[in-house]
Amino acid sequence: MSTSSAAPGRDEKAEAGAAKPPMRDALVAAAFQLFPERGYEQTTIDDIVALAGVGRRSFFRYFPSKEDVVFPDHERCLADMTAFLAASDEEHEPVLRVCDAARLVLRMYAENPTFSVQRYRLTKKVPGLRAYELSVVWRYERALAEYLRERFAGRRDGTLQADVIAAAVVAAHNNALRSWLRSDGQGDASAAVDHALGFVQTAFGTAPAPAPAGDEKPEDVVVVVSRRGAPLWRVVQEIEATLGRD
Amino acid sequence: MSTSSAAPGRDEKAEAGAAKPPMRDALVAAAFQLFPERGYEQTTIDDIVALAGVGRRSFFRYFPSKEDVVFPDHERCLADMTAFLAASDEEHEPVLRVCDAARLVLRMYAENPTFSVQRYRLTKKVPGLRAYELSVVWRYERALAEYLRERFAGRRDGTLQADVIAAAVVAAHNNALRSWLRSDGQGDASAAVDHALGFVQTAFGTAPAPAPAGDEKPEDVVVVVSRRGAPLWRVVQEIEATLGRD
Repeated sequence: MSTSSAAPGRDEKAEAGAAKPPMRDALVAAAFQLFPERGYEQTTIDDIVALAGVGRRSFFRYFPSKEDVVFPDHERCLADMTAFLAASDEEHEPVLRVCDAARLVLRMYAENPTFSVQRYRLTKKVPGLRAYELSVVWRYERALAEYLRERFAGRRDGTLQADVIAAAVVAAHNNALRSWLRSDGQGDASAAVDHALGFVQTAFGTAPAPAPAGDEKPEDVVVVVSRRGAPLWRVVQEIEATLGRD
Repeated sequence: MSTSSAAPGRDEKAEAGAAKPPMRDALVAAAFQLFPERGYEQTTIDDIVALAGVGRRSFFRYFPSKEDVVFPDHERCLADMTAFLAASDEEHEPVLRVCDAARLVLRMYAENPTFSVQRYRLTKKVPGLRAYELSVVWRYERALAEYLRERFAGRRDGTLQADVIAAAVVAAHNNALRSWLRSDGQGDASAAVDHALGFVQTAFGTAPAPAPAGDEKPEDVVVVVSRRGAPLWRVVQEIEATLGRD
């Protein structure tokens, strides 16, 4: 996964596998062989290292705890997201930029559907893993919010807008991701996430402009606010006057 | 705190104190006397019950764990929120309704500013408590989302919209709440939360019509022309500015 400033393209070949040390992969594979057989709680770190054929210290070189082996790629993905956001410049529209950052997380899941679905089922069953996942989601959300807070520093209500938009992006991403995981990783996860993020972009005003119809001036929108009970002719008069003035 | 279908009024007298058993209050008071003195981790349940002058079993009658004594009112507040949402009917505008539900949480904090500020400082220092808080926040968010999912059942993208709006409401509420807590509980928490929730209502299209200003002519019509793709909150800001000028 690249940390360049380019938006992550969904057709780009995933590069993550190449960089991972084989021993780390072996520990993850051993853990995910044992968890369904024995149950997560019943599987010990000793069981995992025995099956992987490595020493106990090797486990802790890669993973601080048993929970971390369930989510082996989140730290890397968080680092990638932080680097991606840090590599932004003024030209990047902020809401689009955090949507692109969220797509890095989706790509991590979509790289390995079988593993992602297996972990999703495990996480649903183990309260400790759900708590761990909440804390990871929170860190993604804070990374997005911190970036937006910086970009919105000059705005009135900048921190409020940053926090709300970050939360909306994460919720939209997770809504699409979880639908995909519940469907056993069938279907196009990227398209589902794009659609979900589109809702957030519309709500916060960065939706792509609809194609202009015929001779309509594409850049104009007319919003009419009228008092309840205002006669229609008054409204029409105001619209005509406004358009006439332009 | 009422579980009626009426929106929670911020001037309504808080009734929560009356219903709480004194022994439970004594345990909370003892815990919050000891935590600053000894540190959260170093304070044992035995220390707390000794200071409160009750037996160990009494503690567990009220609190499943030491963490729960730090957040003694969230279970009640979650139950109140669930009841409040369950008492909704078709006439309630869904986004306004979840905003009102979020105000129940604010009211719980604002009922006792000193305690809320003290807990905020403690929670910031203890990772285990932050994790606990995240799981509580998640439960509030799910309660709001479940209500919205039901209300949006007929909509295309109903669950997406429900999840995103619930997350936005919680983020806005927490942005205002945390500002208030950081300022040591000074200022009007309710007004800050109202303002924050107003941003969410605007983004999702349910902003209340601005109240007419004193000398405004009631029959006036305001027309705003804005760029296509301008975010809705910008449009509303323009409308507010225009109405302010009138």
